[in-house]
Amino acid sequence: MKYFLIVLLAHFISNAQIKEGQLDLMPWPQKINLGAGTFALSKNFKVNITGNPNPRIFIGATNFLRRLDGRTGLFLEQAFLTKINEKPEAELQINCVRNGKIEINEDESYQLVVTSNKITINATTDLGALHGLETLLQLLQNSSTSYYFPVSTVSDFPRFTWRGLMIDAARHFQPVAVIKRNLDAMASMKMNVFHWHLADDQGWRIELKNHPKLTELASDGYFYSQEEIKNIVKYADDRGILVIPEIDVPGHASALLTAYPEIGSAIANGKVTYEVQRNSGIFNATLDPTNPKTYEILSSIFDEVSLLFSGSYFHIGGDENNGKEWNANPTIQKFKQDNNLMNNHDLQTYFNMKLIPMLKKHNKKLMGWEEIMTENMSKDAIIHAWRGTNEGQEAGGALVKAAKSGYNTVLSNGYYIDLLLGLETHYLNDPIPKKIILSPEEKARVLGGEAAMWSELVTPLNIDSRIWPRTAAIAERLWSSQEVTDMKSLRKRLKTISFRLEELGITHLRNKEVILRNISNNQDTQSLNNFSNLCEPLKNYKRNGGGKKYRMHSPLTLFADACNADAAQALDFSEAVSTYLDNKTVDNKRAVTNFFKKWVVMNNDLIALSANAPLIQPLLPLSQSLSDLSEQLLLVMNKKQTVNSTLMEDLLEKCNTRSPADVELAVYTSLKKLVEIN
Amino acid sequence: MKYFLIVLLAHFISNAQIKEGQLDLMPWPQKINLGAGTFALSKNFKVNITGNPNPRIFIGATNFLRRLDGRTGLFLEQAFLTKINEKPEAELQINCVRNGKIEINEDESYQLVVTSNKITINATTDLGALHGLETLLQLLQNSSTSYYFPVSTVSDFPRFTWRGLMIDAARHFQPVAVIKRNLDAMASMKMNVFHWHLADDQGWRIELKNHPKLTELASDGYFYSQEEIKNIVKYADDRGILVIPEIDVPGHASALLTAYPEIGSAIANGKVTYEVQRNSGIFNATLDPTNPKTYEILSSIFDEVSLLFSGSYFHIGGDENNGKEWNANPTIQKFKQDNNLMNNHDLQTYFNMKLIPMLKKHNKKLMGWEEIMTENMSKDAIIHAWRGTNEGQEAGGALVKAAKSGYNTVLSNGYYIDLLLGLETHYLNDPIPKKIILSPEEKARVLGGEAAMWSELVTPLNIDSRIWPRTAAIAERLWSSQEVTDMKSLRKRLKTISFRLEELGITHLRNKEVILRNISNNQDTQSLNNFSNLCEPLKNYKRNGGGKKYRMHSPLTLFADACNADAAQALDFSEAVSTYLDNKTVDNKRAVTNFFKKWVVMNNDLIALSANAPLIQPLLPLSQSLSDLSEQLLLVMNKKQTVNSTLMEDLLEKCNTRSPADVELAVYTSLKKLVEIN
Repeated sequence: MKYFLIVLLAHFISNAQIKEGQLDLMPWPQKINLGAGTFALSKNFKVNITGNPNPRIFIGATNFLRRLDGRTGLFLEQAFLTKINEKPEAELQINCVRNGKIEINEDESYQLVVTSNKITINATTDLGALHGLETLLQLLQNSSTSYYFPVSTVSDFPRFTWRGLMIDAARHFQPVAVIKRNLDAMASMKMNVFHWHLADDQGWRIELKNHPKLTELASDGYFYSQEEIKNIVKYADDRGILVIPEIDVPGHASALLTAYPEIGSAIANGKVTYEVQRNSGIFNATLDPTNPKTYEILSSIFDEVSLLFSGSYFHIGGDENNGKEWNANPTIQKFKQDNNLMNNHDLQTYFNMKLIPMLKKHNKKLMGWEEIMTENMSKDAIIHAWRGTNEGQEAGGALVKAAKSGYNTVLSNGYYIDLLLGLETHYLNDPIPKKIILSPEEKARVLGGEAAMWSELVTPLNIDSRIWPRTAAIAERLWSSQEVTDMKSLRKRLKTISFRLEELGITHLRNKEVILRNISNNQDTQSLNNFSNLCEPLKNYKRNGGGKKYRMHSPLTLFADACNADAAQALDFSEAVSTYLDNKTVDNKRAVTNFFKKWVVMNNDLIALSANAPLIQPLLPLSQSLSDLSEQLLLVMNKKQTVNSTLMEDLLEKCNTRSPADVELAVYTSLKKLVEIN
Repeated sequence: MKYFLIVLLAHFISNAQIKEGQLDLMPWPQKINLGAGTFALSKNFKVNITGNPNPRIFIGATNFLRRLDGRTGLFLEQAFLTKINEKPEAELQINCVRNGKIEINEDESYQLVVTSNKITINATTDLGALHGLETLLQLLQNSSTSYYFPVSTVSDFPRFTWRGLMIDAARHFQPVAVIKRNLDAMASMKMNVFHWHLADDQGWRIELKNHPKLTELASDGYFYSQEEIKNIVKYADDRGILVIPEIDVPGHASALLTAYPEIGSAIANGKVTYEVQRNSGIFNATLDPTNPKTYEILSSIFDEVSLLFSGSYFHIGGDENNGKEWNANPTIQKFKQDNNLMNNHDLQTYFNMKLIPMLKKHNKKLMGWEEIMTENMSKDAIIHAWRGTNEGQEAGGALVKAAKSGYNTVLSNGYYIDLLLGLETHYLNDPIPKKIILSPEEKARVLGGEAAMWSELVTPLNIDSRIWPRTAAIAERLWSSQEVTDMKSLRKRLKTISFRLEELGITHLRNKEVILRNISNNQDTQSLNNFSNLCEPLKNYKRNGGGKKYRMHSPLTLFADACNADAAQALDFSEAVSTYLDNKTVDNKRAVTNFFKKWVVMNNDLIALSANAPLIQPLLPLSQSLSDLSEQLLLVMNKKQTVNSTLMEDLLEKCNTRSPADVELAVYTSLKKLVEIN
């Protein structure tokens, strides 16, 4: 009886008019109108495609059906879409006027109309239609027994044309499966640029038939074959995503120079040698811009790489050339003088300018990190702004300068997801902040932005948890209206988005348990999981102690790898504390003290687990400090003891120490507030 | 203080003499002696390799270090092994006399000696040394704060030379990443044959340059490129695993005939067409053995496929030819008469014999399912025994017949892991049962066995959970002494083995949560998980209702996909019931009734969840029946109510019904025992 009442009630609730606030759409569309009523989903639901789309829409629509079926278990009848107008009677009609081109400034708009018995997606290109299918999947609702789409009209298009994710496959190699699942996730967030960092000091990751030495000597056997690259470019293309390769020069060149030491800038007694780096950091290995052979080899490399990528852009890096080898080399110094190059920036511009025709030959434009933007740099280049206050620069300053100087430009400053900063930092980082005054032409040069996943501390096991779900917030920043900035709405929607990313194979949720099981030595992970939801990995690269703690083969199966920015329970605790401080009712107090009780138990559980799990030992000091402070606060808040300020502040400070487990306690700020008022 | 006591205690316990029963080795070695003392692991631990091994040992030793480091978090210093005698001072010394060949009957033995300050692995071949490294990883022990190996001597070799796993990539395509992680898992269980089922009625999965139509028309875009195949063969070789391709002919040929209908046996009015099948089952599509073009095409296919695989065996299937097309085709019937072929078996032998020279040309021997064993079949063929009581045959009968008839033979009957039978069925299925009398020569012809993972109901999401950890039990049957048969020991060790498979990327544990989150619609999965540990997917293909319920694109994201054979909690309950029935103490009774209390709560939780999760609805009737019976048994066992036999039996029978969720309640038998005594 109870069962039927609940079912009935749920049915009643969910068939009521859906409101915008209930929808977990991301990125939020430009315009949505909800009507009354629903479109009921059944196993007979079918899709039909008309117009003149690129065949990628058939793959997209087939994948759409499989995902819908996986969620609903309806056993949808339609198997594979392969032809235009295959099922004219279908309930979902997709029309595309023309073949979408995988390039910047292509039309990606779509109109989605759901009525009670028909759904239509109209788009100029199949790229827009693919976005429409993602929105439709996000619109799916359910009662207790059935699935439906709310009657609605969505009219949507992106604010910025460049909505990218960069993955560094050089520091830690990321296998094809990692790239593919992330391309799927990107497409689900309507992102359209995959920037693939393929070479750096720690490895050369791309097979070159004319330069086999590169992978033989500088990849440790971890690289993409040309077939794999072509396969990934096609996979991305099928999902409306442009792939941009990056070969980082003239710095970050240890791997390249391991194979070709003769084009390096170092002077040595006798033979010059370089080696693949095992640590993080900025290294000296730099190409010699005065050596004609440098350009011969690069030109030949670019010839081969360019053919693998169909897009119009080629990223040449250009960042963090520390100039040490150049400064120490008299031949290079003389060359500067002879050519009226005032400094290393000018010399690098000289170098960069030589690359432009190599790429133009393949109809590709040069893109580089912001250091390439010097006075004499070609205005054809795209400037990739990345530096900010961490590097002693104005945040995003290069972006504004580039736009004002006539360069097209893309923002990554503020989108460095490997810094493990909070969601808000990224989400509220607008490529064109309102306070910046730009002319319409200048604004148009701001193409968009890119989340940057540097891979010093990520392996296939933990990389997804660093990218997702946070990159979805960046995707929304780049797609949606500038006015969509509500953090509460973002966090609420992100919970569903995060869950749904699992169906695309993203492993951020499932692999956390894997890491915790390893730490616990196959014991119950509940208390470890609770603690991980209170801790965050050290931010701003502090985990890696100047690049020295973790080498490229060091274990990344540790507690910090299971933790993440925006520790889930820290947010809950912060809210409970704020509520209590605003209004000290008994209930509000209990909400806070319940946390303390749990943390005391958690600490005891962790101690018990540690008896058979050495990897738990490094967590115990921090957990103990939290438990001790919790006990004190329990006594004080329940008025069972008067405040011992010295003790409390001492315990509080212990909660502010970095644990040997490379994490920090994310509840510290809220604890401090409580200690201060007690 | 409490903390330090626990740490001290754990330290004390774990440094005590380790006993064999504490070791979670699998497969159990032929001989192990434990001594006193330990080898303490530190970050300085290094590996050195001497002798004349195949370079695969460098990859194996490097992977060994990474896995050890991932478990222990020690930040081991050694990065990559690449050379012979690179670290002569290393604590682990591996010596291999010679290069191991990836073939049957190669020497795979090894001796592992752990002393308190040195470890040695001596092996004739690197294949043996790789096995030794796996054993060493399994020997790893820990105190509360440190890791060590127990002083010990292991002398080990396989009982059978053929220890295989077959994966069917035809019904559901399994991407490269799935194959690779399963090869890693196989190697960890000392398995050495990967049998790759690459073509069947539901798809052709191998790129052929001379026959592009096969993948164009019969793969739905899901196939392995030749480069991927070569890459996987190399990956397997590096792990000591032989890869055997299977192209199933003359039946199971719908995909092949979709591309080449002209060599099919069907007669049609006008043009004959075939199509890729979407359902499971046995289909009529069969090659025409009387058509010379059949052999032309097969020969050309075999030419191309053979070059991709370095091993000496080629599996041609040969099973389940239902003969319908042959019987209906007058030309074929006439051919039989003209050639004195008495029946379809003879005709198939005629066909099979034509394939032998095609393979011999590439130095490959023909292997086929047991149906190929007819009177005139060449004794060079290897007979793959698969049928049993399900197919109206004596279990493993073909194996004995083959061995007695002079054929080399491999057993898969009893190792069909897709039947979802209990662990015991597979584990106690000996290729040479003691009751069977075979001569030494006949015994020698029994090469070993193969677990068979048919893929009608598996996708990359759930396939690992069907293969692992159960295949580890089969691996032990094939490696270890015939006397190693203790189920209790197996189950105990398998818990650790199952956990450790995670470090190789096996997803059986992590993906269960993914499926449950999907079913729960992102609600708390605790009660669902509890219920999944009481339920087992329908066995013996009953889930698929004659191959009609699930098509190849049907959802496999359902409750039955999260459940598994050997439901964990059913085993616990069964033990509690047995203990109680043996000795009806208050404590033993409480152990049983505690289950009932939990199940009542669980059912209420599931009902609550179902309000927002339609995929839970199909589970509720079974959960409700279990809850109702639990309530009755609680009342009766606690003597709060007299027994109403009719009601109890009615409720019990409801617990024996198959749920619409395609599962059965694994606690039924134990419940029945309780009902019967009450």
